[in-house]
Amino acid sequence: MTKPILSTINSPADIKALAESDLPQLAQEVRDELIRVLSDENPTSVGGHLGPNLGVVELTIALHRVFETPKDKFVFDVSHQGYVHKLFTGRRERFGTMRQYEGLNGFLLRTESEHDCYGAGHAGTALSAALGMAVGRDRRGSDEDVVCVAGDAAFTCGVSYEALNNVAHSTKRFIVVLNDNEWSIAKNVGAIAHYFNKIATHPTYAHLHDKAAQFVEMLGGKFAKNFAHKIEAGVKNLLAPSVMFEDLGLRYYGPIDGHDIPLLINTFEFLKTQNEPVLLHILTQKGKGYAPALEQPDKFHGLGKFEPKTGKTASTSSPTYSELFGKTLAKFAETNNKIVAITGAMPTGTGLVHFAKAHPDKYFDVGIAEEHAALFACGLATQGFKPFLAIYSTFMQRAYDMIIHDMALQNLNVALCMDRGGLSGDDGPTHHGLFDIAYLRGVPGLVHMSPKDEDEFVDMLWTMAHHSGGPIAIRYPRGVGTGAVPKAQPKLLEIGKAEVIKHGGTQPARVALFGLGQMCAMAEQTAALLEAQGISAAVINPRWIKPLDTGTLEFFARSAEVICTFEDHVLHNGFGCAVIEHLSDAGIKTPVARIGWPDQFIEHGAVDILRKKHGLTAEAAVEKITPMLKTKKAGSAKSVA
Amino acid sequence: MTKPILSTINSPADIKALAESDLPQLAQEVRDELIRVLSDENPTSVGGHLGPNLGVVELTIALHRVFETPKDKFVFDVSHQGYVHKLFTGRRERFGTMRQYEGLNGFLLRTESEHDCYGAGHAGTALSAALGMAVGRDRRGSDEDVVCVAGDAAFTCGVSYEALNNVAHSTKRFIVVLNDNEWSIAKNVGAIAHYFNKIATHPTYAHLHDKAAQFVEMLGGKFAKNFAHKIEAGVKNLLAPSVMFEDLGLRYYGPIDGHDIPLLINTFEFLKTQNEPVLLHILTQKGKGYAPALEQPDKFHGLGKFEPKTGKTASTSSPTYSELFGKTLAKFAETNNKIVAITGAMPTGTGLVHFAKAHPDKYFDVGIAEEHAALFACGLATQGFKPFLAIYSTFMQRAYDMIIHDMALQNLNVALCMDRGGLSGDDGPTHHGLFDIAYLRGVPGLVHMSPKDEDEFVDMLWTMAHHSGGPIAIRYPRGVGTGAVPKAQPKLLEIGKAEVIKHGGTQPARVALFGLGQMCAMAEQTAALLEAQGISAAVINPRWIKPLDTGTLEFFARSAEVICTFEDHVLHNGFGCAVIEHLSDAGIKTPVARIGWPDQFIEHGAVDILRKKHGLTAEAAVEKITPMLKTKKAGSAKSVA
Repeated sequence: MTKPILSTINSPADIKALAESDLPQLAQEVRDELIRVLSDENPTSVGGHLGPNLGVVELTIALHRVFETPKDKFVFDVSHQGYVHKLFTGRRERFGTMRQYEGLNGFLLRTESEHDCYGAGHAGTALSAALGMAVGRDRRGSDEDVVCVAGDAAFTCGVSYEALNNVAHSTKRFIVVLNDNEWSIAKNVGAIAHYFNKIATHPTYAHLHDKAAQFVEMLGGKFAKNFAHKIEAGVKNLLAPSVMFEDLGLRYYGPIDGHDIPLLINTFEFLKTQNEPVLLHILTQKGKGYAPALEQPDKFHGLGKFEPKTGKTASTSSPTYSELFGKTLAKFAETNNKIVAITGAMPTGTGLVHFAKAHPDKYFDVGIAEEHAALFACGLATQGFKPFLAIYSTFMQRAYDMIIHDMALQNLNVALCMDRGGLSGDDGPTHHGLFDIAYLRGVPGLVHMSPKDEDEFVDMLWTMAHHSGGPIAIRYPRGVGTGAVPKAQPKLLEIGKAEVIKHGGTQPARVALFGLGQMCAMAEQTAALLEAQGISAAVINPRWIKPLDTGTLEFFARSAEVICTFEDHVLHNGFGCAVIEHLSDAGIKTPVARIGWPDQFIEHGAVDILRKKHGLTAEAAVEKITPMLKTKKAGSAKSVA
Repeated sequence: MTKPILSTINSPADIKALAESDLPQLAQEVRDELIRVLSDENPTSVGGHLGPNLGVVELTIALHRVFETPKDKFVFDVSHQGYVHKLFTGRRERFGTMRQYEGLNGFLLRTESEHDCYGAGHAGTALSAALGMAVGRDRRGSDEDVVCVAGDAAFTCGVSYEALNNVAHSTKRFIVVLNDNEWSIAKNVGAIAHYFNKIATHPTYAHLHDKAAQFVEMLGGKFAKNFAHKIEAGVKNLLAPSVMFEDLGLRYYGPIDGHDIPLLINTFEFLKTQNEPVLLHILTQKGKGYAPALEQPDKFHGLGKFEPKTGKTASTSSPTYSELFGKTLAKFAETNNKIVAITGAMPTGTGLVHFAKAHPDKYFDVGIAEEHAALFACGLATQGFKPFLAIYSTFMQRAYDMIIHDMALQNLNVALCMDRGGLSGDDGPTHHGLFDIAYLRGVPGLVHMSPKDEDEFVDMLWTMAHHSGGPIAIRYPRGVGTGAVPKAQPKLLEIGKAEVIKHGGTQPARVALFGLGQMCAMAEQTAALLEAQGISAAVINPRWIKPLDTGTLEFFARSAEVICTFEDHVLHNGFGCAVIEHLSDAGIKTPVARIGWPDQFIEHGAVDILRKKHGLTAEAAVEKITPMLKTKKAGSAKSVA
């Protein structure tokens, strides 16, 4: 009776072949496997998005029971809830490699499986992409179903509405599943969450929901499809309509229990017969079936490996940049009442949770709405406030137009705090923050910096708080830094002034190493390697990407034989490019070696593995630098124009 | 009795001092002045946004009658409807300089007047920015009103919903005016337009509206405020509620006639007493009071100078890039059924109106929704279609995250057609397309090009239609090019292969000029100037920004004494920067002079004036190049590493 089921599932066809009575056991085995693989029971685990996946186990079973991928298309918003789908679509045996180098990606990936029709790591993209697929299908005249699964948080994201505005006149066959999980409702960010909550908790709606559930269950799955035309009117009256979605031209069904497999199956059988766009509102529990995840939904949204019994995770020795950010800003705000902080649904990820506790009245979580966040900050800045906008480097791409058109053009005093500036590692290419120098350096008037360690980070935040010359941005890496403990009293840094870490001897150094941000450590390692070979090397912490410290750069470029730049960013239009550009304009011909990411998307994996693979190491730097050195002794034949 | 009124209006206080019976005459004089100043009656006219401003004359009068800028804040979405506001706020005497160099900007500008609390040239920003102001006001504890005026088109833009989601829990005092003009309704783009139309045309609503109008008129302006608490309940029942806005937490009023000055005044007097966020839905006519604008609302949305009697504009001798784009793509789609075209509410501006006429079933206007447009294109591309996404360079900034995260990362075959790539001239900094190389060159795998003339433009479009290696982008300028008539049959261009226009003699040229896109013409002028001084010069049309033709670049860099690049883009992270970067990596030390826009926002004005002012001329190039030339004869002492 307790014969394992999951181990027999190699493709969606195997799900369809199971008896319906076996499905609850399958759901349990999937939960066990999710917990096992992401916890420290799996020796190679790097953790992952446990809570969201525990919440969609029944949904994913029902989807694969009713629809047929790859013919039918499932478009998961953000797609961090796609692990269960991966388990069912031929990736079970590789499941233990989740988010590890050369293992499964933590998000859907078109290149990973034909069952992944669309990849995503940023929220709010699913409805639009799915609509494109549906319109493409209609134009081709084929008949597959397109099912879009989006969490309630995706509806705090403007692009979801842009899509909704275009559904009704574009296609007649389109299924949206609104996966409304209780945690998000509890957090109640904005009017939409409030509205969903109203529907879900309204006594009349709840009553109707129970009746509807009984009704659909009574009809039975296989029959529902055949009798659809007869039951349609009945169901429509039994399920509570939502005027908002109906105003936008989607027929609304729900809310129904998203953990009730037979109900989900019957409802999907019914919905796929409909000749109009539909939205099914399901209620699920993030972390369903695992007590630690239910108790701490925020922590278990996404986390590193944990102890499966208790859910405990190992604590880091020193605070992460994110924690430091939230706590430091909270401290600044005690004496500076101009400071306010804004996040786009990332209170924990950005560390602003610490600020929120200390200053709830100065803290704004606007939902997954980076565009609004940036504009809201601009509005506040016009009133004399100093908004700190905490958005990951990769998500700041969403606010790019606002940074140019509103913030920089109007010279408004907004502080852009870009966490995960650099390789994000396990999360992979959707989350790497490798483009912010490329997209920001062309923006007139914008100041941009990166700290070498935690102490300097606090000095930079202090400098940002005191800056009144327009927008000012900072990029800092994921996780912990060198562990440098911040001073009791931070100091103001001079904007555009680099820090010379060491001159490299009494003679001018033969090589000058410019290590941006956390890459300063690699510059120091490189210096050590060079010096071991008798080659003198200076190390400079540039601090400022823009304005560049051109004086310090020119000083070293005129005296050294080789300049080498280090950055956790793509080389094209990166920091090294700024260095080369200035030297060219100044007519200085000292050769420049550059260490940074190549012109390709970087896969997921441990940062160290990926750095080594792509040539971001001190050894690689030495290899680049050595052939550029003059064979004659340093000091003669300066290559200055 | 017909004593002129407008000429007496020097500040909003003068509007308040008028008798209410004088206001219709003021409205008429404003309309006359708008038509006079933007038409060829004004010898320096460069035209402007006539239709939108004719539509908001009464609204602007009512706003300035009831509220008090600069204390109260008016945030106009897009703000191209701000001309009337400018007339009333101390800029009447400069009104004839509208959109001219050193004259008034065509949009609101914080630096132009203390009455302009927020500038904008892109849509959908007003609600968010205004909400920031309202929250800032609440935190300061002051009592001014914040009024946000947004057209119905702004509600096709996702960020407006992100803002709406955040209003109710953020402030209790917030006035949104939904300026719903009949033209947009007639165009009926998407569910929102349909929904607004339903409210506006529903017989019950219309009936209620008439009664409400009588009711409020009866009460009279001055009294409305005092009796507000008494009439509130009555008005709420009389004006039709809109469930959607109410679900989002804004009290809805309307729809009312946006040309009825007393009704507008009384309604604003009432709304400013409310202690909850409100949305007033007004119905206006774009082009109101000017027959040619009513007949051709699309043309009169924004246009060059015209003949005031008839509304006729001078026709250009050759087609603009936009026209050519729409017509060419329509021709390609006759034989290639994979081609579809997408615009974000710019059928005329992008030229896709020609495509829409020929292929209505392959044409998608998604509203002012660039993010959705890009994702919708991605979805279509996954189904084997070839979407051409026509979005101005400056508006493409809105879709930046989607270009990286969805399009390039998944290597989807989407063609990005960026009109207005380069200085936009009269429209000013909100519309200049000066950043697309900076933000796109760092994106892995993305192909990016620019044509020197119309013939090459068609070849490039043809090449884009045949490209199947991922996203491919083109930037082309506003207006007409050199007038080069396209060949009957376009030819495929080799990706990454530049065109050598001339080698500059039998000996290697001393200077190699790389003129990107339309700047190729300036490179040719520069060559002529140099040659007149006996300095040989090669001219290269690079065609490709990425991938750069490194072979051609190296060939000339190894033989010439100086390289000079020309681009209609900021220098930071621009085309010249790519050239410098490659030469540095290749160890080639030939000096590079660069012509392009400096690191500052460029004001509005005629392109020629601005180019001259900022050093984008052949003469400026010669000045930069000359000191870089070797004093000895060309041919000796190559500066190659």
